[in-house]
Amino acid sequence: MTDDRDVTAQLNARGDVAVVVPAAGAGVRLGPGAPKALRLLEGEPLLVHAIRRTAAAPSVRMIVVAAPPAEVEAVHDLLSPVAPVTVVAGGAERQDSVAAALAVVPDDVGIVLVHDAARCLAPAELFERVAAAVRDGADAVIPALPVVDTIKEVAADGTVLGTVDRSVLRAVQTPQGFRAGTLRAAHAAAADSHTDDAGAVEKLGRPVLCVPGSDFALKITRPIDLALATHLLKLSE
Amino acid sequence: MTDDRDVTAQLNARGDVAVVVPAAGAGVRLGPGAPKALRLLEGEPLLVHAIRRTAAAPSVRMIVVAAPPAEVEAVHDLLSPVAPVTVVAGGAERQDSVAAALAVVPDDVGIVLVHDAARCLAPAELFERVAAAVRDGADAVIPALPVVDTIKEVAADGTVLGTVDRSVLRAVQTPQGFRAGTLRAAHAAAADSHTDDAGAVEKLGRPVLCVPGSDFALKITRPIDLALATHLLKLSE
Repeated sequence: MTDDRDVTAQLNARGDVAVVVPAAGAGVRLGPGAPKALRLLEGEPLLVHAIRRTAAAPSVRMIVVAAPPAEVEAVHDLLSPVAPVTVVAGGAERQDSVAAALAVVPDDVGIVLVHDAARCLAPAELFERVAAAVRDGADAVIPALPVVDTIKEVAADGTVLGTVDRSVLRAVQTPQGFRAGTLRAAHAAAADSHTDDAGAVEKLGRPVLCVPGSDFALKITRPIDLALATHLLKLSE
Repeated sequence: MTDDRDVTAQLNARGDVAVVVPAAGAGVRLGPGAPKALRLLEGEPLLVHAIRRTAAAPSVRMIVVAAPPAEVEAVHDLLSPVAPVTVVAGGAERQDSVAAALAVVPDDVGIVLVHDAARCLAPAELFERVAAAVRDGADAVIPALPVVDTIKEVAADGTVLGTVDRSVLRAVQTPQGFRAGTLRAAHAAAADSHTDDAGAVEKLGRPVLCVPGSDFALKITRPIDLALATHLLKLSE
């Protein structure tokens, strides 16, 4: 990967992909101590790292970030030096934010990727891999990694109920990719609060395809993740 | 945690725990390029890091390492500056190595922990937590962490079969702890090759209990793990 820190990305006006980033959760706010999307990694918010890599994917025509309603302008100011972004007011639930972002994606954009800013080191190659699988005909595509640990199913009291066959399990990452119409239909149909867009597509009875994920697409939530991300960031520059 | 790098540990002659470390796999050998237990982390083999932390657990009376038959003396020479260890010749399969190590554990040692050298930063506290749960009456105890990623079950062609309820899943670590008689019985009964001692106890129909694992007990197998371990090592000193 190249160091694009000093480059303001231009998106590809002929791309067929819109990337939606819901970042309006209650924990998202600017300023010191900010958790989640605005937590700092090497001095920059996770959201900035995420958008920089998103914009580096050649297929991406449009990036839509759903921000807390009071922070729309501030998030736009934060991101506009990084890449051209559309910032919309998000909702109370993650699915409300995805829906608000989807609403501004033009109908002629055929592929929508939903990305989690906490997976801010997901490389441009991963966006391309997911988009390509949708372009090749899949309704819904998720990047995922094999599960490396032995996995047990446990009862509430901590007693092991059994060993799970991990060879059939995959740990899911983002960006998750969708034929735009499929994602709109899944969101229209999903009544309950969900955090997993692919799960909403599964509920529609449509097939979801796994493609190989990336070690760099780890979710940064715990201090140990931030430590690893700091190291990975150096590797990727 | 204290820096015990310059301290030769003395084990507790009144402890009730033997720790068994199978490190005789085909990939284990001394010298450059050595994988697995003898891979270097900050200039020292993973096995050295593992034994240092094992020896720091106050309940540990005895440490038995199963090494490749041709490397028994070399592994002893490697580890004896770190802690008093018994090194035995291991077998072709992991379970053969555990059995060979178990054979030299005296009958009056009531608790046996089986540890993977690749989880070399597992802290002394984790050994104590596992041993304490066995002492409190459990036949078999495994340290485990919640599964943080969304987990999908997938078909061979990559199609998602469904979303797994991760709230009932745990990712298993080592050291795993056993009432000594239970582990001996499980090994005597296990005909097939297995890599998971707790799984052999499950097959006996005996209960296995989960206790909280540790972020530091990650398994170091991929380059990305080694990078994280290097960072964690600095945190723990």
